[in-house]
Amino acid sequence: MLVTVVVGSGIMAQQLSTDMGLQLLENSLATFFGLTVLILLFQQISGSHLNPVVTLVERLVGGMDRTGDAAAYIAAQVIGGLLGAVLANAMFAQPTRWSTTDRATPAHLLAEVVATAGLLLVILMLVRTGRAALVAPAVGAYIGAAYWFTSSTSFANPAVTIGRMITDTFAGIAPGSVLPYVCAQLVGATIAVALVSALAPRGRQR
Amino acid sequence: MLVTVVVGSGIMAQQLSTDMGLQLLENSLATFFGLTVLILLFQQISGSHLNPVVTLVERLVGGMDRTGDAAAYIAAQVIGGLLGAVLANAMFAQPTRWSTTDRATPAHLLAEVVATAGLLLVILMLVRTGRAALVAPAVGAYIGAAYWFTSSTSFANPAVTIGRMITDTFAGIAPGSVLPYVCAQLVGATIAVALVSALAPRGRQR
Amino acid sequence: MLVTVVVGSGIMAQQLSTDMGLQLLENSLATFFGLTVLILLFQQISGSHLNPVVTLVERLVGGMDRTGDAAAYIAAQVIGGLLGAVLANAMFAQPTRWSTTDRATPAHLLAEVVATAGLLLVILMLVRTGRAALVAPAVGAYIGAAYWFTSSTSFANPAVTIGRMITDTFAGIAPGSVLPYVCAQLVGATIAVALVSALAPRGRQR
Amino acid sequence: MLVTVVVGSGIMAQQLSTDMGLQLLENSLATFFGLTVLILLFQQISGSHLNPVVTLVERLVGGMDRTGDAAAYIAAQVIGGLLGAVLANAMFAQPTRWSTTDRATPAHLLAEVVATAGLLLVILMLVRTGRAALVAPAVGAYIGAAYWFTSSTSFANPAVTIGRMITDTFAGIAPGSVLPYVCAQLVGATIAVALVSALAPRGRQR
Repeated sequence: MLVTVVVGSGIMAQQLSTDMGLQLLENSLATFFGLTVLILLFQQISGSHLNPVVTLVERLVGGMDRTGDAAAYIAAQVIGGLLGAVLANAMFAQPTRWSTTDRATPAHLLAEVVATAGLLLVILMLVRTGRAALVAPAVGAYIGAAYWFTSSTSFANPAVTIGRMITDTFAGIAPGSVLPYVCAQLVGATIAVALVSALAPRGRQR
Repeated sequence: MLVTVVVGSGIMAQQLSTDMGLQLLENSLATFFGLTVLILLFQQISGSHLNPVVTLVERLVGGMDRTGDAAAYIAAQVIGGLLGAVLANAMFAQPTRWSTTDRATPAHLLAEVVATAGLLLVILMLVRTGRAALVAPAVGAYIGAAYWFTSSTSFANPAVTIGRMITDTFAGIAPGSVLPYVCAQLVGATIAVALVSALAPRGRQR
Repeated sequence: MLVTVVVGSGIMAQQLSTDMGLQLLENSLATFFGLTVLILLFQQISGSHLNPVVTLVERLVGGMDRTGDAAAYIAAQVIGGLLGAVLANAMFAQPTRWSTTDRATPAHLLAEVVATAGLLLVILMLVRTGRAALVAPAVGAYIGAAYWFTSSTSFANPAVTIGRMITDTFAGIAPGSVLPYVCAQLVGATIAVALVSALAPRGRQR
Repeated sequence: MLVTVVVGSGIMAQQLSTDMGLQLLENSLATFFGLTVLILLFQQISGSHLNPVVTLVERLVGGMDRTGDAAAYIAAQVIGGLLGAVLANAMFAQPTRWSTTDRATPAHLLAEVVATAGLLLVILMLVRTGRAALVAPAVGAYIGAAYWFTSSTSFANPAVTIGRMITDTFAGIAPGSVLPYVCAQLVGATIAVALVSALAPRGRQR
């Protein structure tokens, strides 16, 4: 559903607005609203990871006990990301095909590192300080800001990156840019884990 | 009042802005604010249904005990929707007449199914997990997003759909599109009930 | 400060944007943010009325015990409104002079009745149902919506209306329109009191 | 990170949008989201000052016991502000160099006095009335409004002002304007301390 929100609102914005900044504003506000609600919805069922790097980090720092569970989560996230793009394409009568938008430049990859590090920092810090109830609006707001302050518009999520590969619309990303983006996201996640260990070294207090 | 907000802000947006995306942004933000406040206001009096599919689902899953109450709610919602459109027209000195905006295409009907399923999912999941206090902002935010990620701009409410039939302005919908939209909304509601039964099978914990 | 926010953000919007809808969007979002914060700030000191019709209604329904207090509040509100407009003009190096924007038409006056009735409904309903803590964001959001769904852009406040009389900028209102607006606001407040008595007839439960 | 958000979103807005008001809207909404999240993140570790005038005032009114701590905070804030600008420049492949945007006019300096006084008022009043948990969203919203209602777009923070000196983009400020801005901010802080002493004279109740 997250990919449906991102891709769908991107198509709508591109169809209706001419100014590219306005398109991104529309896209980012819809994502802020949609992401906040999605995390809220599934937080008490699955923890609302929605994001393979979140699952990987949770497995690493102790939030998930079994590697098999983490693998199943990641598979579900990627499949969900792809289906979400197909659904968004269908609602707007757009074909599902490879994106032709190349996005991988050094500056954009740096931006993905920053974006993902910030995202994990928000999640881990709030959970470690006993404020998990704030994760939903805080992550929504963080991404709402990161669309703007990072040059890559902040994918920060491998499953979303893969899903956005199969829509040749506003939010698409060419297959050739996906691997560099995912690598940058993993680097960002590693930095976040190190930062949180330094800033809030105590054990989890969920 | 919900229809007044949707129709009135649509007229204002259309009169003041030239970019269609900007018009929808203005319309969607006003609806986000207005809908959140409206649900908040009447939640402790009537449950703030505002929406016939919500009432139908509540009757089905046990939130309302009597069919007569549900029928009265739905009648009030439809009458309110029509009066709300008349009031918005009057405030902007616009005539109350049939809309000429045809909206029923297969892609738009798929979008209404998705929009309504998502709306019911938000409401039912939050209520079932004991977080009814979050329904107002979450539904507001969901609709704020759904204006953008669905191609139909997310009516997701038969009473609002009927009310928007009698204004020939930005938010109007031609009478011929109303029945298909309402049917799609009922399909979406059915899907949501099935999904929630699978995701949160325990009894209601309001 | 409320008038400073409304007038100041109106000047900024008018100077920077060409699309009138975009100007109103900027003006309305700044007011949503500013009004919410202002109510929050002074709620525990004075009740954060900021609005003569709120003070009048509070005196009427029992929230204020002495007429002298109400009169002092209203005087402070009007003086504050005028000083706020002077401050906004000064920050933007604009002269303080009569506005030349005539706003009084039958449709606009109907809109002021609706806008003020809605505002009082939000405040009184939340207070009567023991949710005074929600008044700040709810009133901010309500006005954020009412800028758009009412044709008058929702003044809904006699002190603000008077303050906006002395700035010949985006948010100004010609002196000749002030009295009709204030009368419409009083009518709206009366309707709200009647509606709340019907909807939530029990005594105050602040 | 605050400077990264402000500068980065300013560059993105300037690159994508043509209307200057729209650029500021994008910049201000990204700042609202980002600032709120940042304060939230570090509130339980350092108090999330992020701002030398906040640190100075806390030292003055008793929130910090040692002058050495305050000096270390301010040094960290200024260094962080400069590094934040460098990071934003790097993500957008922009050179780090002196800004050429002169901003110091009498009207703008008055605006900085008002902006900083308001900011401190929000923080001190909420803390003194036992609502420190509201500081993050309230400060975010206050700045979101102050971008618009002050002619200077509300820097209100010496460290941010210094950081924005080394980016020649949308959010930049010429070195020659920095000292007048910082002085105006100190004046504003002094006014806020006086106002809070009058409005909420009791001791701190954090």
